[in-house]
Amino acid sequence: MLDKKHIENFQAIVGAENVYSDKAHLIAYSYDATRTHFEPDAVVFPRNEEDVSAILRYCNANHIVITPRGAGSGFTGGALPAQGGITLGMEKHMNKILEIDMENMVAVVQPGVINMDLQRAVEALGLFYPPDPASEEYSTLGGNVSENAGGMRAAKYGITKDYVMALRAVRPNGDVIRAGKRTIKDVAGYNIAGILIASEGTLAVITEITLKLIPKPKFTKAYMGIFPSVTHAMNAVFKSLASGANPVAMEFMDDLVVRALKEKLGVQLPEDAGALLIGDVDGNVEEEVAFQLATLEKSFKENGAQEFIVAHDAEKRKELWFARRNASPSITIYGSKKLNEDISVPRSMLPEALERIYAIGKKYGFNVPCFGHAGDGNIHVNVMVDGSDAKQLHDGHQAIEEIFQLVVDMGGTLSGEHGIGTSKAPFMNIAFNEDELALFKDIKHAFDPNNILNPGKMGLPN
Amino acid sequence: MLDKKHIENFQAIVGAENVYSDKAHLIAYSYDATRTHFEPDAVVFPRNEEDVSAILRYCNANHIVITPRGAGSGFTGGALPAQGGITLGMEKHMNKILEIDMENMVAVVQPGVINMDLQRAVEALGLFYPPDPASEEYSTLGGNVSENAGGMRAAKYGITKDYVMALRAVRPNGDVIRAGKRTIKDVAGYNIAGILIASEGTLAVITEITLKLIPKPKFTKAYMGIFPSVTHAMNAVFKSLASGANPVAMEFMDDLVVRALKEKLGVQLPEDAGALLIGDVDGNVEEEVAFQLATLEKSFKENGAQEFIVAHDAEKRKELWFARRNASPSITIYGSKKLNEDISVPRSMLPEALERIYAIGKKYGFNVPCFGHAGDGNIHVNVMVDGSDAKQLHDGHQAIEEIFQLVVDMGGTLSGEHGIGTSKAPFMNIAFNEDELALFKDIKHAFDPNNILNPGKMGLPN
Repeated sequence: MLDKKHIENFQAIVGAENVYSDKAHLIAYSYDATRTHFEPDAVVFPRNEEDVSAILRYCNANHIVITPRGAGSGFTGGALPAQGGITLGMEKHMNKILEIDMENMVAVVQPGVINMDLQRAVEALGLFYPPDPASEEYSTLGGNVSENAGGMRAAKYGITKDYVMALRAVRPNGDVIRAGKRTIKDVAGYNIAGILIASEGTLAVITEITLKLIPKPKFTKAYMGIFPSVTHAMNAVFKSLASGANPVAMEFMDDLVVRALKEKLGVQLPEDAGALLIGDVDGNVEEEVAFQLATLEKSFKENGAQEFIVAHDAEKRKELWFARRNASPSITIYGSKKLNEDISVPRSMLPEALERIYAIGKKYGFNVPCFGHAGDGNIHVNVMVDGSDAKQLHDGHQAIEEIFQLVVDMGGTLSGEHGIGTSKAPFMNIAFNEDELALFKDIKHAFDPNNILNPGKMGLPN
Repeated sequence: MLDKKHIENFQAIVGAENVYSDKAHLIAYSYDATRTHFEPDAVVFPRNEEDVSAILRYCNANHIVITPRGAGSGFTGGALPAQGGITLGMEKHMNKILEIDMENMVAVVQPGVINMDLQRAVEALGLFYPPDPASEEYSTLGGNVSENAGGMRAAKYGITKDYVMALRAVRPNGDVIRAGKRTIKDVAGYNIAGILIASEGTLAVITEITLKLIPKPKFTKAYMGIFPSVTHAMNAVFKSLASGANPVAMEFMDDLVVRALKEKLGVQLPEDAGALLIGDVDGNVEEEVAFQLATLEKSFKENGAQEFIVAHDAEKRKELWFARRNASPSITIYGSKKLNEDISVPRSMLPEALERIYAIGKKYGFNVPCFGHAGDGNIHVNVMVDGSDAKQLHDGHQAIEEIFQLVVDMGGTLSGEHGIGTSKAPFMNIAFNEDELALFKDIKHAFDPNNILNPGKMGLPN
């Protein structure tokens, strides 16, 4: 519980209307997409960078812990106050697109701007902001930067970090830091923006983000490849990319997802479809789109595809994408609770990785439907359990731990795009050795010696 | 001077043949492209990562300073032992391409590999490593990562940091750190690779680099735009890019460079050519190349270009590029010594930035020929002075300082690609405020509490 004098001090900084300390609001701010909950002692809404600085300075002096929060849509608890203290709500006031600089193809935004709001604003001007996490309709760009959000278009266009040109951020001691420039090249000083990306709000509070934009490609078409098995599809992924294809997205659905789509949603797919790859290709000229489609078709067929379908109009494109967009809701037929993890391996390891993941599922008696961003090696693995069965939950978590171990053994990562937060913190020692964890701790200490910023995350010591 | 017992210890670690402490060798290792010199007390050549770790551990325990060195081709003194101690020569043994993984389009190299050796090796396999600093024929990839090297192809393909997927590095205490993965997405733990890039060997010694490769584009053509003035050309730069052109390179030469090319090298250019833009466009299909050329031509002509020339064969392409490749040697007609700096501003600021740079030159009575990577906002500014005239040298340095101040005022950076090292260290307080410099110091301390790694660089405190 936070002393009343602290609440009054926050009220003095941001105004009484920008501090919540009543139970109803504290409960409302205790959740994110993990469905775990941690209640803050207060929620404070800064109006600007000066407020952020004053709040942090006060918290630092008084050893009050503080957790920045955007939309609270994260999958690993990054925005949850694991140790109480105050939640810093960035979405209420610091949610403006400050500038779209068409001459330099740059957008400057506050952290509370919703990803899709920026996408729509820049597309109206013929520009393009590619990072498209599945949460794009509600997640904030501050959260996207803090977790280094990915998405479907990463195969061709990369992830959030590839678009961050500059950040403004406030250190726990209240210092305001400018990192990076509105220039493509900038090698003066340490790459502070680089270390803040994916730091999950544990090092500084981001107050302004400068993002690179690119021209919007003029032509886009969707494709679908239908394969007899997961292994065929997985081979087609890395072989088609290595053969020169550069699709915007290459999304994968396995046989369990295909079955769920048919059974639950009546999606029309061939009897013998064992796996799907769905995606878009784009280009400035129609011939580039045709080149991409031809390269994919050739490679898919060489790797056993039964069918290669191209959507030549918007209607058909929507139909092809329907399967992918409904993969997640469809698989509930396999269990009331999904333990879902977003592992990532080098693409050539996908065939073996999936085979071994299914074997782990089989050992415990679980269905493990998998889908996701195969084009960049990032797969969403879903261990389906009966959420009311304690034994199944326990075994499910065991299975997840085994999957993490095998992914790391294969040169992969605990998280392709969801982050570590609280959910994956127990697995950090699978992925990192003691020396690496010690370096993380030293970096945390350099930014935040009193450990007030989002403590209890990323497996950092308390 | 290093105590004899230390030399013997280094000999015990790497073998006597891998330690130089004789005067001739120390002098040979005291230079880089800055033409300043600092002599090391010894040069030690590690054979592998274990050697690096043992050397660093020993230096850390004995407070011996240590400077990593690749080819010594840097422009800002990054590889010079500003405070003596040992130079760690990475080019002798740790110079192997360890793997070219075609399936995942990734190369794994040791830091001493020469940039162009990697380019050639991957192009032979149909792949492409785009970062192409002017030093590509001799600079090492370890140096490229440490300085975050750029090059001409940055306009379309980005810079070194955009290709670093993973690093192995040794901390001053000897800890071996793995940072990043052979995956496009990886958000587990702090982005250690991100902070090591451009850290100029002050945080850790890089021992292995995993680089992203891309498919080699099938078609390339060169273009040249001839403009009546620098302002016309500079407007064409940002306007053509904002209109959707995405050239591989867009290189600029001003009127002084044009005159020097004609006078010194007899290059044939129109009488009234006031500025040139030269570059390549590429694509997977010829239509994409044609689209790029048409977009550039339209925009160049709208911005006053007298001529737009396309090289349809290799011979003509070489001819167009001759002007750019000889820009640097030609301008010696303006003075025996050039004080050259690689400033970078947001592209839309280029017209005004150049106008103001010329005004500074005029005030001091110097010619300031400018050329470089306009497509990414990075310009090489050359203040031409009589190197034997102390007054001119002094005034030249004054002019440089004024140029840095104006670039920073315009939202630009002290260095687009050369780094800070010793040369630009005095100007760090123009670009960064006290809070930012304090953060750099805290990060340095977190990695290197005894300040043994490349001290005296980047304006960090001693």
